[in-house]
Amino acid sequence: MKFDILITDCTLLPAPGEEALISSGFIAINAGRIAGLGPMAECPSDATGTRIDGHGQLAMPGLVNGHCHAPMTMFRGLADDLALATWLQDHIFPAEARQVNPDMVYACAQLAVAEMLLGGITTVADGYFFEDEVARACADTGIRCVAAQAVIDFPAPGVPDPARNIEAAHRFLEHWQGRDPLITPAVFAHSPYTCSPQTLRRAKELTRHFQAPFFIHAAETRDEIAQIADPMAATPIRHLEALGLIDRDTVCVHCVWADNDDLDILAERQAGVVICPQSHLKLASGRAPLLAMLNRQIRVGLGTDGAASNNSLDMFREMDLAAKVQKVMPCDPVAVPAARILEMATNGGAEALGFGLGHGLLAPGSPADLILIDLQQPHLQPFHNPSLLVYSAGAADVRTVIVNGTLVVHNRQLRTIDLQASMDRVRQLAISS
Amino acid sequence: MKFDILITDCTLLPAPGEEALISSGFIAINAGRIAGLGPMAECPSDATGTRIDGHGQLAMPGLVNGHCHAPMTMFRGLADDLALATWLQDHIFPAEARQVNPDMVYACAQLAVAEMLLGGITTVADGYFFEDEVARACADTGIRCVAAQAVIDFPAPGVPDPARNIEAAHRFLEHWQGRDPLITPAVFAHSPYTCSPQTLRRAKELTRHFQAPFFIHAAETRDEIAQIADPMAATPIRHLEALGLIDRDTVCVHCVWADNDDLDILAERQAGVVICPQSHLKLASGRAPLLAMLNRQIRVGLGTDGAASNNSLDMFREMDLAAKVQKVMPCDPVAVPAARILEMATNGGAEALGFGLGHGLLAPGSPADLILIDLQQPHLQPFHNPSLLVYSAGAADVRTVIVNGTLVVHNRQLRTIDLQASMDRVRQLAISS
Repeated sequence: MKFDILITDCTLLPAPGEEALISSGFIAINAGRIAGLGPMAECPSDATGTRIDGHGQLAMPGLVNGHCHAPMTMFRGLADDLALATWLQDHIFPAEARQVNPDMVYACAQLAVAEMLLGGITTVADGYFFEDEVARACADTGIRCVAAQAVIDFPAPGVPDPARNIEAAHRFLEHWQGRDPLITPAVFAHSPYTCSPQTLRRAKELTRHFQAPFFIHAAETRDEIAQIADPMAATPIRHLEALGLIDRDTVCVHCVWADNDDLDILAERQAGVVICPQSHLKLASGRAPLLAMLNRQIRVGLGTDGAASNNSLDMFREMDLAAKVQKVMPCDPVAVPAARILEMATNGGAEALGFGLGHGLLAPGSPADLILIDLQQPHLQPFHNPSLLVYSAGAADVRTVIVNGTLVVHNRQLRTIDLQASMDRVRQLAISS
Repeated sequence: MKFDILITDCTLLPAPGEEALISSGFIAINAGRIAGLGPMAECPSDATGTRIDGHGQLAMPGLVNGHCHAPMTMFRGLADDLALATWLQDHIFPAEARQVNPDMVYACAQLAVAEMLLGGITTVADGYFFEDEVARACADTGIRCVAAQAVIDFPAPGVPDPARNIEAAHRFLEHWQGRDPLITPAVFAHSPYTCSPQTLRRAKELTRHFQAPFFIHAAETRDEIAQIADPMAATPIRHLEALGLIDRDTVCVHCVWADNDDLDILAERQAGVVICPQSHLKLASGRAPLLAMLNRQIRVGLGTDGAASNNSLDMFREMDLAAKVQKVMPCDPVAVPAARILEMATNGGAEALGFGLGHGLLAPGSPADLILIDLQQPHLQPFHNPSLLVYSAGAADVRTVIVNGTLVVHNRQLRTIDLQASMDRVRQLAISS
């Protein structure tokens, strides 16, 4: 039997939301999909293909980063320890106005992809300006991306006239739909407080027309509640609901200040939610009501947010913090166990973004998006429990990454990006700006 | 000029609490101390010694882990997502009763040291049973350790008769005092709720006699308040104060539930404090009032706690979480900036443990305990600000570690421990028990 790739003798965690491990297993990959997996005893004896020895390593689905602004690697650490409004208005927006252009977006997105792939992320949902360049960087480097063109009612990089923001998003969707197996084009309306009701409605209509995902930052900070254009809607989520924007293809990002009524709406409409605990804490936005979301069977994913507000694109740190912050606010160590967090970072996150069942799982027929983690590390021994993936593993433990059946990282070497050149290029851009 | 070690062409962060960087510098090391440092232009042209090329790397003081139970690597991930009382009484105490013996303590402490050195920790304050073996493991592997023999009023590993716990601590202090330049012996009274007032007083007397540090877990959980033996003292800290236990050589670990009166006492008595945010969150103990401590000029260090309650011995994760949790509870992104956190993880933490000025800084005459961090990593580019050391750097970025003038890790290779053998040994112990 001929396979494209055959991974042997690894520990297998097929469904990270369940704790069942196969202690010595194999995975066979063909034509971008998982062709088979199981205990080594069941590995076809005549199997051939590019062999990867998984001894001492754990294979699991690749991580799904539910929210990112990849090109913001440019602003990593530029303005730390500030409140969100100050950070955004006094530092990030001016820096973006000066520095964001297509070349910068491609170069900085490429650096972000390098960091994400090396940290075991195989799918990312991104939103930014000049999103064409992000999509191109992702397609070129081999990461799966839900790429969303940003829409905002201010002059923005690439869209100096906000009256043409929907037109730009339209062009983006038209260009990318069906173009590349790795790219799902989408639209990112910045927020209820930076987009008029009309813009929001038009953006959503556009995504309905293209059957594309619609993203929006919502209920991130307490202050945001006061800034909603419609004084009749008590909260950002109810404002969006009143506009008819919340449905199965809408993903609300943050939802830190979503109240119970908001969560009921999100559950009833079957909207997706992505939370970004590191960003929420670093910008002092608050703590998202994760348990209340999960109790309502809302599809919830985890995201790193951009590198300017985190400051890493590291889903391992994100998982660790997501779990811990839910334990302490309020005090309940049992509320959201590690397995639920792992699920949110893999198939749960994929579902929140609108991917079909099987995405984010190791199962026959699933997209071959998977990672190998080196367990032969002092901080992962003894390996009593997969909870160590949340509470002790780190991005640097990822040794091998496969996306859509293609080997993009092997033995910690990126095969699709010249890492040194990528870092040099972004550093050069940062210095010269 | 002949030096033992000469590091050239590195970025220098001499005092992590201040943000001043030297962009291309040198460090000269002699006889365990820093002999000189500064910009490359000031490097003596005739300098010789073992040369380390620091190009692309950042040199900073080694990290100080203010609280650990090193041998608990054995129980890493054994019982996650539980409340502290259940975790301790139903899982950890029984496992300890079964499995803790001198061989296990040495082997598991060695694995902990491997993890800590590879993560840039050059000083650790440890407390456990059979602490002789921890001290021996630290001395053998070249990490600086404040090693504290545990005292508890229950039958404990190595001290089956609690009536002899002070005697055991006495023997420990006598044996280790002045024996090894890396080892500072001390006593760790487990807590106000597991030690009688008489035991606490006798333990403190003992450390006064030996001029040794005295450690105690205090005010870790809200429940603890109700368990204090002395019904007259409202809080664990006031109970210790009433017993005359709090002074400059006492370090109170955790202090999550220390109230303002408690903090006033700790400040007035000039006691040290160590907080362990990851453990506090994971066990849902709460959030320590760090800002109130710093505002009172209390010496505060950061600690990882043991690997069973964290689950890593990673001071980078600890720094990141310490900073972020202080921003969100209550919402104040500015309260404790990254530089303060870096200080707590280096010279601030060293002061909390009773080390003299200069420890935890790169300065002429300081102990040569320092690390080199690889900045040529995608998650550390561009390097706008040392805050990235808190918000993005990780243990795996540490390339070289020097303790007391000795090169213990070089290019991520441990020079004092056979890492594979150490991991195999602990795994074997974990399986066979």
